[in-house]
Amino acid sequence: MVYNPDSTIAAIATPSGEGGIAVIRVSGDNAFSVVDGFFSGALLLANAKSHTAHYGKFSTINGEVLDNVLATVFIAPHSYTGENTVEISCHGGNFIAKKILSSLLGSNVRLAAPGEFTMRAFLNNKIDLAQAEAVADLIHASTEKSHRASLDQLSGLLSKHINSLRKKLLDLCSLVELGLDFSEEGIEIIKKDDLLAGLDSTLIAIKNLSDSFSTGKIIKGGIKTVLLGKPNSGKSSLLNLLLNTNRAIVSETPGTTRDTIDESLQIGGLLFRLIDTAGLRDLTGDSIEKEGMLRTINEIESSDLLIFLIDLSTKSPQEDLNYLISLTSSKFSNHKIVLLLNKVDLINQKHNDFNIPNVDFSLEISCKTGVGVDKLKEMLPKLFIDDSKIDPSLPVVQSLRHKEALEKAYDSCLFAKGSVLNGLSGDFVAVDLRNALDSLGDIVGATTTDDILNNIFSQFCVGK
Amino acid sequence: MVYNPDSTIAAIATPSGEGGIAVIRVSGDNAFSVVDGFFSGALLLANAKSHTAHYGKFSTINGEVLDNVLATVFIAPHSYTGENTVEISCHGGNFIAKKILSSLLGSNVRLAAPGEFTMRAFLNNKIDLAQAEAVADLIHASTEKSHRASLDQLSGLLSKHINSLRKKLLDLCSLVELGLDFSEEGIEIIKKDDLLAGLDSTLIAIKNLSDSFSTGKIIKGGIKTVLLGKPNSGKSSLLNLLLNTNRAIVSETPGTTRDTIDESLQIGGLLFRLIDTAGLRDLTGDSIEKEGMLRTINEIESSDLLIFLIDLSTKSPQEDLNYLISLTSSKFSNHKIVLLLNKVDLINQKHNDFNIPNVDFSLEISCKTGVGVDKLKEMLPKLFIDDSKIDPSLPVVQSLRHKEALEKAYDSCLFAKGSVLNGLSGDFVAVDLRNALDSLGDIVGATTTDDILNNIFSQFCVGK
Repeated sequence: MVYNPDSTIAAIATPSGEGGIAVIRVSGDNAFSVVDGFFSGALLLANAKSHTAHYGKFSTINGEVLDNVLATVFIAPHSYTGENTVEISCHGGNFIAKKILSSLLGSNVRLAAPGEFTMRAFLNNKIDLAQAEAVADLIHASTEKSHRASLDQLSGLLSKHINSLRKKLLDLCSLVELGLDFSEEGIEIIKKDDLLAGLDSTLIAIKNLSDSFSTGKIIKGGIKTVLLGKPNSGKSSLLNLLLNTNRAIVSETPGTTRDTIDESLQIGGLLFRLIDTAGLRDLTGDSIEKEGMLRTINEIESSDLLIFLIDLSTKSPQEDLNYLISLTSSKFSNHKIVLLLNKVDLINQKHNDFNIPNVDFSLEISCKTGVGVDKLKEMLPKLFIDDSKIDPSLPVVQSLRHKEALEKAYDSCLFAKGSVLNGLSGDFVAVDLRNALDSLGDIVGATTTDDILNNIFSQFCVGK
Repeated sequence: MVYNPDSTIAAIATPSGEGGIAVIRVSGDNAFSVVDGFFSGALLLANAKSHTAHYGKFSTINGEVLDNVLATVFIAPHSYTGENTVEISCHGGNFIAKKILSSLLGSNVRLAAPGEFTMRAFLNNKIDLAQAEAVADLIHASTEKSHRASLDQLSGLLSKHINSLRKKLLDLCSLVELGLDFSEEGIEIIKKDDLLAGLDSTLIAIKNLSDSFSTGKIIKGGIKTVLLGKPNSGKSSLLNLLLNTNRAIVSETPGTTRDTIDESLQIGGLLFRLIDTAGLRDLTGDSIEKEGMLRTINEIESSDLLIFLIDLSTKSPQEDLNYLISLTSSKFSNHKIVLLLNKVDLINQKHNDFNIPNVDFSLEISCKTGVGVDKLKEMLPKLFIDDSKIDPSLPVVQSLRHKEALEKAYDSCLFAKGSVLNGLSGDFVAVDLRNALDSLGDIVGATTTDDILNNIFSQFCVGK
């Protein structure tokens, strides 16, 4: 991956495939003169005002016209990257944009690396690192909640909170360091109690942010769901019923490993990713040792939600339930479990209440008549996120990188607190506070190494 | 399909899928005020100058911010459609553009029908009908030559020729009609010989255009190619060798039926569409009656090119050749046939020359060493188009609709000529000339019905 900020870069910024238009983005010092070498409109782009669009012909170096295009000019720093930028809008399809791009690449321009436009926006201080990361999340967002969280992060909600924590820590740190200069004179710059109080409130704030990752993870990554039930218990009917109105279109995030997703549902603004497991289709006792069943158990272990479906109309639903009990009483514990009693329309008398340990809720439904399905859709998201308890003015941490940085900052603050409590020299306290500041700085990119940057931006798509 | 030109329309103009940006196009009288209802930037778009881009927030009707977008304003008639137009550029992915579009659709705006933006460009006289059709062809172009032909057509090369023919016919027609007024006075407005000469040169010009369709069809639709050979004759090696440098990415044209394409190659600017047939894999004598073989024969019948591959290193290549002879001497005749003698690297002595009737050329190759493959790539396109004989200043007719209109015009001119030769009244001649004019007018849209328009534009993608 080459991220040399001096070169002028270009890439197709729109997805490939069928469409009315495609856009090629060119950014860098020479963007205007480079494009002027191929573009002929009413005036040179180098002489155009910022934020103006110009109609003209784009030709190859040999003068062969490739397309009639619209070139929009953005003069630095008033562009996405903060550099001189031209966006060339041409006819869509698979062919023309590639021809235009390869013409450009022939001359002083190289292909942009993944995420390089956004990386430049970061390097030119148009956005901070947390905001830059939000761009990729925003593009991959497939639900209301992940879209909202990413947009909040892009708007700077997380950065604002991180920066306010950094400001507070920096103030404390400055006072501690100032105190070092005056320690021999016995002048107390900050009272021990005030320092401890400041650290405590910072610890709480960091902890709250860090804890929000459990919600953020669900919002960003969705809920891995295993739907389990005997043949004829109604699994496919349930799936079709839910898919009918809730099918989600999911895009792959480059650089992340995904499970084999059978289908994705959006319910209550959350993404439920349904895993297809071989063992699901054959839950009879004698197949329990088959490889498919082992895989199923592995999938269940790593899932967030297990939906267990039984057919009430069979003679002995209790048998199925015993199997569920054996599952829930074993080592699986981190996931939620829902028991669905299907085909309630077929039974006349009230069944005995089933008492299953560890089940989060059970519900009578009928995939045939639709009874209970609305209730199910209402209850499923609540297992994971209680909207009423979420404060929209507070950021939700969606990134493991951010969570780990917060944990490091937390530990450093805890060290600092210990040093204060143990009456150690201010030197020790100051070092810990500086470490905490660095960790928080990593989140917004105030103190980030090239390695971290490359790792972050290489997960973007090219053209962003 | 609703094509009411009075409404304001909107659609996502970029392909769906992974990408840095997506563009939503809004066109119609109310485009500015509609988008201003959701967009907040430094000024109202209604007050913006044409061809200027404006950064701002796009919010739902409830004030929830959906994205930071760039809105580019085009004031009628200086836009693609000739109407007031806003192009909203937002973050890519599957989610945001859809949310923005559905917000817009809530208010006085409807979803654009396929091709409706281009249809409006036609209705507002920004382009003629042949040019509008070229837009769809341009988007679907997957080779150099199809791209070039579509771009020429979009630039008006075909329209210019059609209009010059119309001008000539109209002049002849006017003189004939004028002659009717003066016929009683015995005044001759146009000499019979001049009229015949004019008709003859027009007939030739129409014929030339119409004949170019045989080239245009190949350029636009590609060459349906069946690769035939015994197992181990080297079919997959050849395919891989060719695919390595020539793989073409082909997009589906909505509304056209395509064969099941196995692979597509671009060679010499032409698209070779390789058909996979079950029978190809098992060419032994005893399978000849199998259904797969019947299908193969059907595919060969409808193909443009049959490439027959034999393994020179086997004991009896003659056997394979006999099969080829049985194929070529049968009813297949419209396609080109190429015989490839593979594994030339494995044989020491010169083989006997094979004399196969109807084979366009035969060539010794080695898929292992690559011998002969460059020669093959050079010769294949020449079977279909001889570049040296193509005059780039002349249009190539790519559309069956255009060809049929040209044929109708030709027939009408022929009728007119017959009437002149038979000394019929000028009335008859004038009617035929008017018919020819109408047929030519159909091509550029001078005289086109709503049905024809709907049929043409419904084959576009939405957003163009």
